[in-house]
Amino acid sequence: MEEKILKFREKIKEKKLIDSMLALLQWDLETQTPKGGYKLLSEMIGELSLKSYNLTTSKEFITLVNELKENENGLDDMLKKEIELLIEEIDKVKVIPSEEYRAYSELTAKAQGVWEKAREDNDFKSFAPILEQIFYYNKKFIGYRNTGKSLYSVLLSDYEKGMDTERLDLFFKELKKDIVPLLREISRNKRDFKKKIEFNVSKEQQKFLSKDILKYIGFDLDRGLISESAHPFTLTVSKDDVRLTTRYFEDIPFSSIFSSIHEGGHGIYEQNVDEKLKDTILADGASMGVHESQSRFYENIVGRSKEFWIGYFGRAKKYYPDLENLTIDEIYKGINQVEPSLVRVEADELTYSLHIMIRYEIEKGIFSGEYQVENLPEIWREKMMEYLGVEPKTDSEGVLQDVHWSCGLIGYFPSYALGNVYSAQILSSMKKDFNVSGVLERGELSVIKDWLNSRIHRYGKLKSPEEIIQMVTGEGINPKYYIEYLKEKYRKIYN
Amino acid sequence: MEEKILKFREKIKEKKLIDSMLALLQWDLETQTPKGGYKLLSEMIGELSLKSYNLTTSKEFITLVNELKENENGLDDMLKKEIELLIEEIDKVKVIPSEEYRAYSELTAKAQGVWEKAREDNDFKSFAPILEQIFYYNKKFIGYRNTGKSLYSVLLSDYEKGMDTERLDLFFKELKKDIVPLLREISRNKRDFKKKIEFNVSKEQQKFLSKDILKYIGFDLDRGLISESAHPFTLTVSKDDVRLTTRYFEDIPFSSIFSSIHEGGHGIYEQNVDEKLKDTILADGASMGVHESQSRFYENIVGRSKEFWIGYFGRAKKYYPDLENLTIDEIYKGINQVEPSLVRVEADELTYSLHIMIRYEIEKGIFSGEYQVENLPEIWREKMMEYLGVEPKTDSEGVLQDVHWSCGLIGYFPSYALGNVYSAQILSSMKKDFNVSGVLERGELSVIKDWLNSRIHRYGKLKSPEEIIQMVTGEGINPKYYIEYLKEKYRKIYN
Repeated sequence: MEEKILKFREKIKEKKLIDSMLALLQWDLETQTPKGGYKLLSEMIGELSLKSYNLTTSKEFITLVNELKENENGLDDMLKKEIELLIEEIDKVKVIPSEEYRAYSELTAKAQGVWEKAREDNDFKSFAPILEQIFYYNKKFIGYRNTGKSLYSVLLSDYEKGMDTERLDLFFKELKKDIVPLLREISRNKRDFKKKIEFNVSKEQQKFLSKDILKYIGFDLDRGLISESAHPFTLTVSKDDVRLTTRYFEDIPFSSIFSSIHEGGHGIYEQNVDEKLKDTILADGASMGVHESQSRFYENIVGRSKEFWIGYFGRAKKYYPDLENLTIDEIYKGINQVEPSLVRVEADELTYSLHIMIRYEIEKGIFSGEYQVENLPEIWREKMMEYLGVEPKTDSEGVLQDVHWSCGLIGYFPSYALGNVYSAQILSSMKKDFNVSGVLERGELSVIKDWLNSRIHRYGKLKSPEEIIQMVTGEGINPKYYIEYLKEKYRKIYN
Repeated sequence: MEEKILKFREKIKEKKLIDSMLALLQWDLETQTPKGGYKLLSEMIGELSLKSYNLTTSKEFITLVNELKENENGLDDMLKKEIELLIEEIDKVKVIPSEEYRAYSELTAKAQGVWEKAREDNDFKSFAPILEQIFYYNKKFIGYRNTGKSLYSVLLSDYEKGMDTERLDLFFKELKKDIVPLLREISRNKRDFKKKIEFNVSKEQQKFLSKDILKYIGFDLDRGLISESAHPFTLTVSKDDVRLTTRYFEDIPFSSIFSSIHEGGHGIYEQNVDEKLKDTILADGASMGVHESQSRFYENIVGRSKEFWIGYFGRAKKYYPDLENLTIDEIYKGINQVEPSLVRVEADELTYSLHIMIRYEIEKGIFSGEYQVENLPEIWREKMMEYLGVEPKTDSEGVLQDVHWSCGLIGYFPSYALGNVYSAQILSSMKKDFNVSGVLERGELSVIKDWLNSRIHRYGKLKSPEEIIQMVTGEGINPKYYIEYLKEKYRKIYN
């Protein structure tokens, strides 16, 4: 048995090394590869993905995993969990023919560049064929698995175990029921808070602030970095090399702040998985929903609170001297302006969930055959009008705005909504342990970080999302807290 | 035979893919990897280097190469040349035990971070042990080969075929004989031209200018990019993905200009190797000496000419508005100030060769056992005083200034001196074909680029450095042109 475990650890080391290399190539592709380099990069990613596939689906590895499973009584909890997750992964992957696996990896690698260019040129047509293929492969791959559930539900549960369209339909219905009237109520007291926080800040200064604010919330820049990309994201090479991106608009100086804090939330999670999980496959977030709960917690509950700005104001002014002319209250209202808008990542908390619902419905519609990829720009505009009352003039600020589909992340978007809901539950628990407002006002962000580290981050994938949420909040997922949080916060602002 | 060639091409494709991945990892390591990520990156580089080693030294591959060699009459010139170079490479590599090969690759990968930090902290002691090891491995590896030549000479000829200490001693003696009196002559007419071109320019503006000037000289930014690093360098992922770095000092605004042009010269070479060599191992520069001839040609003969600034002045002012207050003549004299200084890459053309000689003598001394690594800071200071009459106050601007040794590039430095000498020979030939000054004044840099493309770049490694120089200049290496170029240029400036 000992020998088998040693052999297993060796294989996992190899697998993790390939995954880290893939992460680095992906990073390069999304942050800097010049146009001429896309093709070769995609080939490399295809090659390495195939290697990873071959390792995971090799007879030798599967036999090893199964043998360990049969003797699991003798294994420690960590190893048991690894075996459990690997069996799930093997079941997902081994049904896919290797050539298709490789082709899909190359396709999504290539798709990044195509999407980026399409978005730049406002040219959905050039992206449509590749998007079509991405949906096609996703359907096909899920179809290989015999789950008895609808294809889209399987995809959803891959990101958040136990999720399906039935549960999410209900979940979104519940959110809508409260959010839409709240939005209506607020729009009667409509004010324009935003103008005051719209001034120009050079990219260079924004970069300095982004680094400073990451340090401030507790992201370790010796074990990570921040760069730029068309769409902000977080990528983990290892827990000691966690990479974030943001983007800078000189005339929207708060945009980079909130995307930096958002990605910083993901990054703090990844950096603080328990050291002892480092060489296992458990060194990762529990689920994408839990991951987004951390990013949305930092972005909104922390970053868009008045108390945070009381604490950070002095430092922020060093980089954004125009803040000198504003009061904390003006900043607070400015960054919490409720206003139906076109771009999800710039949306306020109240309208945010509606952006998610649109994506969810579109994905569902494509899987059911109700929608066709070629019609997405039209469908997008219709849904934007229906849910938010605004209509994108270009596809770049419409259907082309998000990077996710080009990466093959279909079924991912609901994670953001789940994350929002989790984050309010987490806040409610945190408040029982200490005075969150006081801590923020005094700039003691390590108190928050330590609390999240010890209750959520350190477990990595050792616990399931349900277990984590249950442990932290004493109950399962419950939208009530989020709705209450929104009502209290926004009624106060728009009294 | 056809089958063997197909098999060979397949292996070369695999080899090139590994090399490209290695290049990307190296790029990451030198431009952005956070401290926490060094260890894993080094492991990856070790792993991939071993894979490349295993491929090159596998019985299967060696047999294949030898079989093709035996039947070389049936092969085309390209394939013949590939086989010739591969046999040389195999002979070099196969004598090294695989574990040592891997260990050395990891060592040099790790050394980057150690060197960077040592340089930042002005702490040679923390770099010395790893530098010691790098020298140790280099001696050991060369020792495995039975060449009958001194170890250091073998290393020198690896970078420039046919070079050895005897030839280089003579070469440097010849240079010194003319340069030292010229320097003395000029220092009698010492003037301070530099002050005028010392003003502040923000990093952001310098970045814009760097890109613009690269475009101006003909580097294709769709098939390459420019980034930042502690020490400027060029790295090729493929001829369609060529990456340069520079560094920005806000108070020395011309520093980034010349390092960008220098690396741009390397980059233009790499980007313009003939398309039909792309999938072969010939898609590379003929030698490091020829490579440096291109970078030094662009940096000095082009970039430090008055005519270049006549042509580029209008565009430069957009990014460096302070240039408005200067005349072309003031810029020209400012960027050609002769002044013994501490840092090689910032040195003027006249003192530059002396910097190279110091490095050459130190390497030679370490190989002969005359010098010890631990004493290098002292030796460096002494030689600086002897050759240049200036003494570094810190090791950061002394022995720690160059990245080369940490990468394992020992025996490389003379390439710069050879490059200088070649570049003046090339200029002399070019002048026979067209009016170089006129072309520069009118900003028609594509004429220069096309000339170099068709006579040098396109051949890649298909021709040897000697063949290239002979073809382009009608003779072998000859320092006369360089000495004349320097005399004419600097006597005029310091009349």
